[in-house]
Amino acid sequence: MASPKGPQDNFGVDYVINYHTPSKEHAEAEAGYIELIKGLTGAGLATEVRPGNKEHLLIFVRIASPSLLAQQVYRSRLQDWLHGVRSTSPATDVSKTVEDEPVTEAERLRIAYLMITKPENEGGAGIIQGAGKWKYVKAVFPLHNRQFNHDWIKKWNTKYSLDLADLEEIRDKFGENVAFYFFFLRSYFRFLLAPAALGLAASFFLGQFSMVYAIGISLWSVVFFEYWKKKELDLAVKWGVRHVSSIQRARPEFRWDFETEDEVTGEPVRVYSPAKRLRTQVLQIPFAFACVVALGSLSVTAISLEIFINQVYTGPFKQYLGFLPTIILVVCTPILSTILMSTAKMLNDQENYATVDGHQSALVRKHFVLNFMTSYMPLLFTAFVYIPFGHVIVPLLEFWRRTAQTITFNKVPLPTQEFKINPERITNQMYYFTVTAQIVNLVTELIVPYVKQQAVAKAREFQTKGQKNDLDHPEEAALLKQAREECEMDEYNVTDDYREMIMQYGYLTLFSVAWPLASVCFLVNNFVELRSDAMKIATSARRPIPWRADSIGPWLPTIGLLSWLGSVTSSAIVFLCSRDKTNTDSTISQITAWGLLLNIVFAEHVYFLAQYVVRMVMDSFESPGRQQERKERFQMKRQHLQDTLGQDAAEIAAASGIETSEKITRAALEEEARQASSAGHASPAETFWQRQRGMQDTIDVGKHHMEQQQRNASPSCTEAAPTPSPRA
Amino acid sequence: MASPKGPQDNFGVDYVINYHTPSKEHAEAEAGYIELIKGLTGAGLATEVRPGNKEHLLIFVRIASPSLLAQQVYRSRLQDWLHGVRSTSPATDVSKTVEDEPVTEAERLRIAYLMITKPENEGGAGIIQGAGKWKYVKAVFPLHNRQFNHDWIKKWNTKYSLDLADLEEIRDKFGENVAFYFFFLRSYFRFLLAPAALGLAASFFLGQFSMVYAIGISLWSVVFFEYWKKKELDLAVKWGVRHVSSIQRARPEFRWDFETEDEVTGEPVRVYSPAKRLRTQVLQIPFAFACVVALGSLSVTAISLEIFINQVYTGPFKQYLGFLPTIILVVCTPILSTILMSTAKMLNDQENYATVDGHQSALVRKHFVLNFMTSYMPLLFTAFVYIPFGHVIVPLLEFWRRTAQTITFNKVPLPTQEFKINPERITNQMYYFTVTAQIVNLVTELIVPYVKQQAVAKAREFQTKGQKNDLDHPEEAALLKQAREECEMDEYNVTDDYREMIMQYGYLTLFSVAWPLASVCFLVNNFVELRSDAMKIATSARRPIPWRADSIGPWLPTIGLLSWLGSVTSSAIVFLCSRDKTNTDSTISQITAWGLLLNIVFAEHVYFLAQYVVRMVMDSFESPGRQQERKERFQMKRQHLQDTLGQDAAEIAAASGIETSEKITRAALEEEARQASSAGHASPAETFWQRQRGMQDTIDVGKHHMEQQQRNASPSCTEAAPTPSPRA
Repeated sequence: MASPKGPQDNFGVDYVINYHTPSKEHAEAEAGYIELIKGLTGAGLATEVRPGNKEHLLIFVRIASPSLLAQQVYRSRLQDWLHGVRSTSPATDVSKTVEDEPVTEAERLRIAYLMITKPENEGGAGIIQGAGKWKYVKAVFPLHNRQFNHDWIKKWNTKYSLDLADLEEIRDKFGENVAFYFFFLRSYFRFLLAPAALGLAASFFLGQFSMVYAIGISLWSVVFFEYWKKKELDLAVKWGVRHVSSIQRARPEFRWDFETEDEVTGEPVRVYSPAKRLRTQVLQIPFAFACVVALGSLSVTAISLEIFINQVYTGPFKQYLGFLPTIILVVCTPILSTILMSTAKMLNDQENYATVDGHQSALVRKHFVLNFMTSYMPLLFTAFVYIPFGHVIVPLLEFWRRTAQTITFNKVPLPTQEFKINPERITNQMYYFTVTAQIVNLVTELIVPYVKQQAVAKAREFQTKGQKNDLDHPEEAALLKQAREECEMDEYNVTDDYREMIMQYGYLTLFSVAWPLASVCFLVNNFVELRSDAMKIATSARRPIPWRADSIGPWLPTIGLLSWLGSVTSSAIVFLCSRDKTNTDSTISQITAWGLLLNIVFAEHVYFLAQYVVRMVMDSFESPGRQQERKERFQMKRQHLQDTLGQDAAEIAAASGIETSEKITRAALEEEARQASSAGHASPAETFWQRQRGMQDTIDVGKHHMEQQQRNASPSCTEAAPTPSPRA
Repeated sequence: MASPKGPQDNFGVDYVINYHTPSKEHAEAEAGYIELIKGLTGAGLATEVRPGNKEHLLIFVRIASPSLLAQQVYRSRLQDWLHGVRSTSPATDVSKTVEDEPVTEAERLRIAYLMITKPENEGGAGIIQGAGKWKYVKAVFPLHNRQFNHDWIKKWNTKYSLDLADLEEIRDKFGENVAFYFFFLRSYFRFLLAPAALGLAASFFLGQFSMVYAIGISLWSVVFFEYWKKKELDLAVKWGVRHVSSIQRARPEFRWDFETEDEVTGEPVRVYSPAKRLRTQVLQIPFAFACVVALGSLSVTAISLEIFINQVYTGPFKQYLGFLPTIILVVCTPILSTILMSTAKMLNDQENYATVDGHQSALVRKHFVLNFMTSYMPLLFTAFVYIPFGHVIVPLLEFWRRTAQTITFNKVPLPTQEFKINPERITNQMYYFTVTAQIVNLVTELIVPYVKQQAVAKAREFQTKGQKNDLDHPEEAALLKQAREECEMDEYNVTDDYREMIMQYGYLTLFSVAWPLASVCFLVNNFVELRSDAMKIATSARRPIPWRADSIGPWLPTIGLLSWLGSVTSSAIVFLCSRDKTNTDSTISQITAWGLLLNIVFAEHVYFLAQYVVRMVMDSFESPGRQQERKERFQMKRQHLQDTLGQDAAEIAAASGIETSEKITRAALEEEARQASSAGHASPAETFWQRQRGMQDTIDVGKHHMEQQQRNASPSCTEAAPTPSPRA
């Protein structure tokens, strides 16, 4: 682990730039360096340079002065207000703004990063890591606050239950983007208690493939999805970041065809032809097809081989051959997956999105589809091909037999046994994915990077021993050591952590009915995961740029999709497997197919209904977030009323609804009528309205009409009384 | 028809109150009358009274003065702004507000109505038609502008295609609520061209039960639904009424349990226990069950009897007995429907919603469910019971045979023929519903009220001949005649018109695959409907209160639901009926059930996919409404920037994005550093940042480090050069 404590508040360093100075390209690197420092200074950033690791410089950057910081904070908050992120506009006085609402570390770092990266015409230094003339800029990152990290990890490792304050700290240090992940993970972890309890009960009392468990999990997923949607909004309001996703960051890599003026605002807009983008997007279809073929044939090959070896084959070397399919999978899946993932990334880059968010969510979607295939295809194959159509795949197994014969040059038929469908297969797979895979994952995610980083650090220490470090000023030595260490670390990518959790959620909703204890495993795993992810950020990754976010972004629809699919697969698995348990010999009959479809249709529509009901019920409560929004709107409204109508009027208006009419006295009305009639010859309309002057006249005339009508109604008196004489 | 032209601008009358003065309750009516006039005057309304129809008074009401109107308009617009309906706050000067944006007739009438009906503590007169002490107030309505109506109807009746300006006029006269209906009807009418063309083509080339037509209609419904969602928003933005539904009108009939203070705003809130409401809402479940039983058994009785008589029975009186089921249906359906509808209304009143919108949409939902049952049940029965399970219902027909025998005392078996399923049945039903029902509907909707109204007017004219009307002032006679006529008219309820169109939409999406020409009929019908609905408002209904609306309200989800269901029923009908055409003898086999379910699952998911794709494509275009919103936000933003940062700064900021940094000169930076160091003993952090003073120092030191690293890298020179001496 890195040394537990760094220098107090890192000497106010906001960012460290790791600048590569390869000796072969000395002149170019030097020119770039000069431009870099000039750019940074021009954007209002103070710099200090120190030697870095081998052939690297460390450039320390901070915002030049507190007053510049204040001004930048003011502008950022003003923009937030204009985008509807804040309900109140910042005070007109810049310094008062900062006083009223102190600047958090995350806010300062975010603003500093924008100053470094924004284009020059928007007042930034325009530095894009690794691109074009900045190709020697290898990293731009903030330094960890080691004291905080140390306390944080210590606290979390000695606590069973994390409370909200623990997560708020993350927000102040690493930004809302990371905080949302931890908050999501915590909510998910707590929600998992219910399926874990259900899973325990089910595995003791109901066994596998229990319809009760399937319904339970499906309802749980509906409630969790709707709960999180609300919670996400609440958090966004609480953190003051609602609608922050509407402030789109321009993607520096965006290539535009032409610049035009926005019809509405007259601002320059960079346009990339939508037709061109669509043409690239259409490539996703053959790509998806290729993925299905590649990953599908890999799965089918491995699984059918495995079935053949384990369940049909009884020839020689059976104990060794049993490992063959696993080896094929273990070797080929990561290779294929890497190729496909990078192809997806390339495709996504080609789609050339204008904003960081657009780019990111398109990439997440593509990666999710790939992950879906690699992770769930084996289980889907077992559930929907192997179990119902087990006997149909026998010809395929025949192929393996012939291959085996060719290879072994064995002309006599290989000894085989009769094939039987084993519904337990899906359980074993689930066991593998939940227990084995999670442990492997924990190791690769946490321990491997740590060991690697330690090894690199040791190697470098040995290599550079007695060279530069001794020349560091003693009071700076700790800071420089820390910066050099962190240059070697990987960037932290919250997307990977989300993906892991969402895929786990998918196993839970789609397949856990085959092994209800999976939810218990996930509960345990996530207890560790919460802490290990914290540890990962604190000790083996660079400090992330504290971006803001108002939701978990593209993962929310993904959760919805997995919940929906889960309702279908769970009930289908129950139907297929519990049926086959009692009747293992029969192939699927027509009546079963009919039942299966009815089952799926029914389960899916129960899911829709449950979703509708849960949504209705949840909407009938006012969440704290909505309440806070309403409060802010009310305060803004009262403030405005005070400004517009004066203090007293505002109090009256607030007390009795906004629309209080002015009282009209009879005297005023009559006066007005008289003025109108004396102003000249009266029109018919004026005459009409002046027949009865004021309230009392109307009352009297009305009474008179009533009496007259009564007289008309009684047959004794048919003659009409005269109407009161007109006055005009 | 009423006389074509009324007095010019109705003498400025805003509202007419029709006040009942029954001679038996003379004292009470008189006291109420006095209170009424006092209340109106207190709220700032001028009144004139005239004799009305028999035992009624006509009270003419207008806002007392232009300045009061201006003030009320100002307050209303201010409230709109605070609710986010307008993006710009009205000018602080009241009279300028009205000058900048003239008050339309609809706006004035809406405000006047609020002044009449708002509770007294909010500055209104608190008059609720027919309730409590206002039980003699029979109607509060604005007078028609007969000149406008006359021109409107004339124009529409001589035009084939209605353009936007025609509809905008409706908005100015009758408010957005009515305008939205006409706009929806126009859009729906135009969209119908596609299914009508498809239907024509299908009936010529493909025949009934064509899968191509089913897919076409399903896709069309997806596109129409998504299009209307966008269009609705665009219109709301264009008319400046977006988010207007968030300004909730309190429902005067609301009964509250207790008053409490709002936690957030401190305003008094009237609370009705949600548990109590839920208890009432739960009653909907047995109610729905009762409806299904009542309407279902009626349908089943009539249909089975009809099938028995037409297709099995061959005994005596067959030609007369054939009418029996129709008579049963025609007599019983309206009776049952009326009972159920009023029960639903009663239930809804019991649910005691606090706002008009909440009440209205709950009622619409209930009525829709009832309409769904009465309208679609016969067709659903035919499609999903009669056709697939025709032979299963033979025992039921046996019951009719026995009943017939009992009644006719005929002991010999009745002569019957063998029962055959006739898929054309659904076509005949569709024909009945589209052609016959639409014509009947047109007659009851337009001609009956007109005749009734004319008859009543003639009768009254005859009755009151020579009595009061001669006493009217000659210049007022036309106005008073008009007001008396309009007192006799029905209130216009836009909900009924919506319901008719939505039910038609349902026939189209759910069943038109059985008779593709239905869409052509609907097209023709709606051409007439657009004009006849206009005629209905103009000539046979009271002028509606011009409420605002920002959408078609609860009908939007209903359209979505019908489109969804349509995808399922259409494909199912195609599957069932085209199969049975070739194979009329067989009852449904297992393989057909399997196929049917697969068909339904497939169709439904194709629908979901199409919806997703259409939504994606539509979202990628910026609609005019969104563009206008963006424009308003931009202008507001520029305005604010001008106010905050001054004219020049705003221009610069607007030209180059909002965040322009201040440029930091090197001199300023150095000066600051010097000041910091001279201010006392420097901390390690201060020392760190002062080692390199300004840009040039950093550049020089960096260059030095680079050279040194290069020397280190080259093996010939291993000794390190000294770092530049620190300056602090």
